[in-house]
Amino acid sequence: MSAQSFSVIGTRPIRHDGVDKVTGRAAYGADIAWPGMLHGAVLRSPHAHARIVRVDTSAARAMPGVKAVIAGPDVPLLDAKLAMGEGAMDLTDVADNLLARRKVLYHGHAVAAVAATSVEAAQAAAAAITVEYEVLPPVLSIEEALAPDAPILHPGMTTQSRPPVEANSGPTNLAGRVRFSRGDLAAGLAMADVVVHREFRTPTSHQGYIEPHACAARVGEDGRVHIWTTTQGPFQVRDITARILGLDAANIRVTPSEIGGGFGGKLPVYLEPLAVVLAREAQRPVKMVMSRDDVFRASGPTSATVIRMTLGATSDGTLVAAEAALYYEAGAYRGSPAGAGAMCVLAAYRVPHFVIEAHDVVVNKPKVAAYRAPGAPMAAFATESLLDELAAHLGMDPIALRLKNAVREGDQAPYGPVYGPIGLVECLEAAQRSDHWRSPLPEGRGRGVAAGFWFNGGMNSSATVLLHADGSAAVVTGNPDIGGTRAAQAQMVAEELGIPVDRIRPVVADTDTAGYTDFTAGSRVCFATGMAVIQAARDAREQLRARVATIWNVAPDAVRFEGGAFHPPAGATHAPLSVEAVAQQLAKTGGPVVGRATVNPPAAGPSFAVHVCDLEVDRDTGVSHVTRYTAIQDAGKAVHPAYVEGQMQGGASQGIGWALNEEYVYSADGVLQNASFLDYRMPVASDMPMIDTVIVEVPNPAHPYGVRGVGEVPIAPPLAAVANAMHAATGVRFPTLPLAPARVLAALGVTA
Amino acid sequence: MSAQSFSVIGTRPIRHDGVDKVTGRAAYGADIAWPGMLHGAVLRSPHAHARIVRVDTSAARAMPGVKAVIAGPDVPLLDAKLAMGEGAMDLTDVADNLLARRKVLYHGHAVAAVAATSVEAAQAAAAAITVEYEVLPPVLSIEEALAPDAPILHPGMTTQSRPPVEANSGPTNLAGRVRFSRGDLAAGLAMADVVVHREFRTPTSHQGYIEPHACAARVGEDGRVHIWTTTQGPFQVRDITARILGLDAANIRVTPSEIGGGFGGKLPVYLEPLAVVLAREAQRPVKMVMSRDDVFRASGPTSATVIRMTLGATSDGTLVAAEAALYYEAGAYRGSPAGAGAMCVLAAYRVPHFVIEAHDVVVNKPKVAAYRAPGAPMAAFATESLLDELAAHLGMDPIALRLKNAVREGDQAPYGPVYGPIGLVECLEAAQRSDHWRSPLPEGRGRGVAAGFWFNGGMNSSATVLLHADGSAAVVTGNPDIGGTRAAQAQMVAEELGIPVDRIRPVVADTDTAGYTDFTAGSRVCFATGMAVIQAARDAREQLRARVATIWNVAPDAVRFEGGAFHPPAGATHAPLSVEAVAQQLAKTGGPVVGRATVNPPAAGPSFAVHVCDLEVDRDTGVSHVTRYTAIQDAGKAVHPAYVEGQMQGGASQGIGWALNEEYVYSADGVLQNASFLDYRMPVASDMPMIDTVIVEVPNPAHPYGVRGVGEVPIAPPLAAVANAMHAATGVRFPTLPLAPARVLAALGVTA
Repeated sequence: MSAQSFSVIGTRPIRHDGVDKVTGRAAYGADIAWPGMLHGAVLRSPHAHARIVRVDTSAARAMPGVKAVIAGPDVPLLDAKLAMGEGAMDLTDVADNLLARRKVLYHGHAVAAVAATSVEAAQAAAAAITVEYEVLPPVLSIEEALAPDAPILHPGMTTQSRPPVEANSGPTNLAGRVRFSRGDLAAGLAMADVVVHREFRTPTSHQGYIEPHACAARVGEDGRVHIWTTTQGPFQVRDITARILGLDAANIRVTPSEIGGGFGGKLPVYLEPLAVVLAREAQRPVKMVMSRDDVFRASGPTSATVIRMTLGATSDGTLVAAEAALYYEAGAYRGSPAGAGAMCVLAAYRVPHFVIEAHDVVVNKPKVAAYRAPGAPMAAFATESLLDELAAHLGMDPIALRLKNAVREGDQAPYGPVYGPIGLVECLEAAQRSDHWRSPLPEGRGRGVAAGFWFNGGMNSSATVLLHADGSAAVVTGNPDIGGTRAAQAQMVAEELGIPVDRIRPVVADTDTAGYTDFTAGSRVCFATGMAVIQAARDAREQLRARVATIWNVAPDAVRFEGGAFHPPAGATHAPLSVEAVAQQLAKTGGPVVGRATVNPPAAGPSFAVHVCDLEVDRDTGVSHVTRYTAIQDAGKAVHPAYVEGQMQGGASQGIGWALNEEYVYSADGVLQNASFLDYRMPVASDMPMIDTVIVEVPNPAHPYGVRGVGEVPIAPPLAAVANAMHAATGVRFPTLPLAPARVLAALGVTA
Repeated sequence: MSAQSFSVIGTRPIRHDGVDKVTGRAAYGADIAWPGMLHGAVLRSPHAHARIVRVDTSAARAMPGVKAVIAGPDVPLLDAKLAMGEGAMDLTDVADNLLARRKVLYHGHAVAAVAATSVEAAQAAAAAITVEYEVLPPVLSIEEALAPDAPILHPGMTTQSRPPVEANSGPTNLAGRVRFSRGDLAAGLAMADVVVHREFRTPTSHQGYIEPHACAARVGEDGRVHIWTTTQGPFQVRDITARILGLDAANIRVTPSEIGGGFGGKLPVYLEPLAVVLAREAQRPVKMVMSRDDVFRASGPTSATVIRMTLGATSDGTLVAAEAALYYEAGAYRGSPAGAGAMCVLAAYRVPHFVIEAHDVVVNKPKVAAYRAPGAPMAAFATESLLDELAAHLGMDPIALRLKNAVREGDQAPYGPVYGPIGLVECLEAAQRSDHWRSPLPEGRGRGVAAGFWFNGGMNSSATVLLHADGSAAVVTGNPDIGGTRAAQAQMVAEELGIPVDRIRPVVADTDTAGYTDFTAGSRVCFATGMAVIQAARDAREQLRARVATIWNVAPDAVRFEGGAFHPPAGATHAPLSVEAVAQQLAKTGGPVVGRATVNPPAAGPSFAVHVCDLEVDRDTGVSHVTRYTAIQDAGKAVHPAYVEGQMQGGASQGIGWALNEEYVYSADGVLQNASFLDYRMPVASDMPMIDTVIVEVPNPAHPYGVRGVGEVPIAPPLAAVANAMHAATGVRFPTLPLAPARVLAALGVTA
């Protein structure tokens, strides 16, 4: 793909949503008030694993201000599956997670819900619901879950798998298995001069978005539903709610609020169907807002993992064999990102002989949700830690070792496809060239490097471009804007139509008015929805070209668009017409112009990142600080570089927090001990250095501008980059995260 | 056009908006509350005509709770024109009507506006604004306005006219003249055996919509505006506000509320730009709601008119000559529907020799607004009264006289175009056949008949059809639904795609998300927007056909759509696929399906109506009652017959009220004396008989289903139908409306 020249793409216009956000005008999930609105509260399980014997809501129903009370059986449990991307979502599990029916499966599992005239009344009524439980032993780790005599979460569960993994009948807590292989592992290992092996562990950790889940629902007397919610997927909220409640999608309108972070954690549905059922019963609108405690206990964190991995290389550093056994906790229902971890674990390197096997394991913790490149950071932690160890054994520069084995265009990914143009080599070379890598390491610090891979998503998107008579325009999509996609979409329309970017209004529409669009996730919005936006703008441009042809009485093909204006054929004397000039003549030439496009691109375009981390440790306290950090990433083409840099910095920051401190701490009976930001230690600004960024651009041929998704891959390298820096600083390998002070002190032989 | 066969068109499904309306859930203009919202109030002129010497707002600004005060100079007066349909709207006049600058031109003219924390505080502050006026003599009638020494409303005004009318320089109160002619009037009159002539007068009357004007506006710190308003034209509100305030259309979002009647009266902009300027100054949202008194005094009624008309016929009833001089009051600014009156006055009949001249006259009354077939009822009152008189002179049946002269396909309209298929003859024949016409007239009653014409509108419309994965769908347009257009649009999509009509959600979108669409007026929505809806549904269907072709691996042309399903080519074994079945496979076959279309049809298709009225008069009180009434109308094709009947009944009812009672009563100094529904006497349900309806269907070739606009023409015949019935009942001709008791008693020689 030859480099294109752009006017607006690659610039950094002021974001269209900026003023609303800094002035507090932007309306988030909880910022809704409807006349007569009630407040919802959820009664949550005090046990990690128990049978529900009896629920008595009579006392709650009798309390003042209480307008509706529902328990599990009130939400119809439809045995339905909803197509989602390539797969299908099991709505039976979704419904059971919304309100437990026969069993509670984690501490915090919703059991009943109340709507009342105040938050306090609702909470009091929820507390007045009595539930009789038969407490069961909880399963709190992968080892416990897979032990022969393990308590079984779901008596009917069997292991889902695709060939070559054999089917496995239950009862079991092993929900799924995936296997990829190539060559002959034993032969590969036999060729190796150096073999390294470790067992890696990562904790349950949370996305930590600032805004808790919140929604409101109202239901008309004709059953029509309007939901206001903070979500990454308004169409998924609509379709899941419709299917669970047996409604037509056309009867539910979902308006996405502004969203205060999601990172995958605002893909699931926790409150919306409950709010609808409560609103229907109460005949009043109902608002439901999670507390931070609710968010920690009952929304989806990411999997705790155990990965046992072996890497073998010849003495010149050529990788020859790899074996990886990945175990990912799914939480209470099947569906961890173990499969994605298996896709990513060796995706950055050429390995002729490997076996990868991933396991999806249910435990008595909240069902995991997606978290930024779901499954990839843990896999990269294993691979990139072992590469660091290999490099040390071989006496090689760690970047040189990676460059020697890096995948290039034409290589086959471990999960099947052959790579097109990709930027791993360019990122590694940019790391080598970076000021950070070439700067001497200050005394007492360690430096680590790690790479990361993410395959990125495509999926369904729609876009509409509306041209106004004064030459300004709107671009309408259905993706809540998390990472700056509105500004990028306005830039794309500006690029295609020559309209100044500040005269273009990017609109996130509700599900009644936007064409179907999959969620804001998978690094797909700027790529796939952006593709739809570009096509919609070009559709509008072609319609405008036809109008100009009518005005000039020439063939449309004879009209040339260049520099934001339509130009007459050679020899003709017409003055060029700007888009604004044509916009004024739409009514006279046939009516309005509405550009539209829908896409479901068959392939996205993988992203690679390379991070360099300097770290120092206080040997008295065990506290470590990242002192310098550089994130390098192939963006394909950066539409709004400041936003790309922001994604790189954000992903690095989350990864650093995960590596250093973040961790769910459970008691033996399965009760989360640190469900607050005071005890669940996320990095704050003062913990972090400036994250330097280097954007590499290897255009993605699957996108008209060469764009690749940029949101997820920056969280893949940091776990390993930090751990490798920790090894460099201390000489100790840390295969278990987080690198919290107590663990560091213990490893350094210091007793507190 | 051959008759088509339909499955859904012509049926009467339950309206999609019905439950919301009967349960009170529908949100109208005043049903909005935003946090921190202020309330606006307007100070209105106590004089009908005065120069503004000084406005002192200092006392108002100092009052508690007052957050913003604006007077005329605060609203920038842009010397701009905005393209509207074929013409252009003078925004200078619009802005001056919003807030008077140099002069007040009618009692009730807005002079200043206030935003405060309560309605009471705002009204008190408005009352505290002191305005020094130099009072001028008011001009309250056409005769006063055109008198040689008349006070001049606009010193710079000249008479707008097109050839063959000569230009006319000012100063004058004659704002415009239009002339149509054919043949040789003098020769025509010379051929006539019978000539009738009268001067007809109709009063200023109001549309009388139940919901007063109301809106709310909020402005972001970045200047972005959101307006919620009850309007017939959200895009016009946007574009007028944008131009007056110098903003991009893309920076204003207008959300139309449900609308409690408009009839043309909710086309102008009275409050919205004031609310925006107040909200900007106060930095808080501002809501403005008119009282009923405000609506009467300061929104646009329709023109009072004087029409002098002559008709000549030969003894066999053939019309040979006509002369009509129409004078329509414009109110305070140029722009009455005199031109439309001139188009309509002879449009129903073949007349070889005629001269029509129409005059637009400014007076010190509120600027008139459109009112259902604007200008036509007064013109039909003249023509149809004279025809009744001619029939009596000739001893002819009044329907037979009309049939003898009725226009047919191929005839040329007085204003130029040649008629295509039209239904006047069919309506007259249906009247002859009707039970009403054939029933003997009860003792003491009179029976009148009259016809009416309306040309109907086309203009710009956009539509989008969204197909959901469960096979339900949405149809999105930008027209507020006044007359049932949502149900009709859902029927059109159901007809085209075979989806049950109750699974289709018709959505009235805001101006950020709907394609540009002209106002809900001109009987254009079911016709023009309906055309866009049908095209958008067909666009979706063609996309679906291509998907089916992909699934079956055949050419798209080989896939046949019939009976709501796609069928394989002859000989192929594929089972037919319903739209719902294809909807489930959209993601796998390329992505979402969004159908869209935009239209600006070059011609609509004229409508004719014939009304029959029985009336009785109480000779003691002068009170008359309509005892039986039948409305006959060519709908082209009735999409939802119950709604068409509702339009026919509503138009007839408004016309009956106009004929019998409605009238603005002014004092000598120009103060409206009856600005309430107590004193402005509109008919209520108990005043009215059941209005019987007969729908005639002569398909309109300009529309894919043959639809003609139906909303306006039913108000054209009633003025004359009632007056002719009154003549039949009393033997007295009433060329001046309304037929109020005092006037009837005076004509009957009864003194009160």
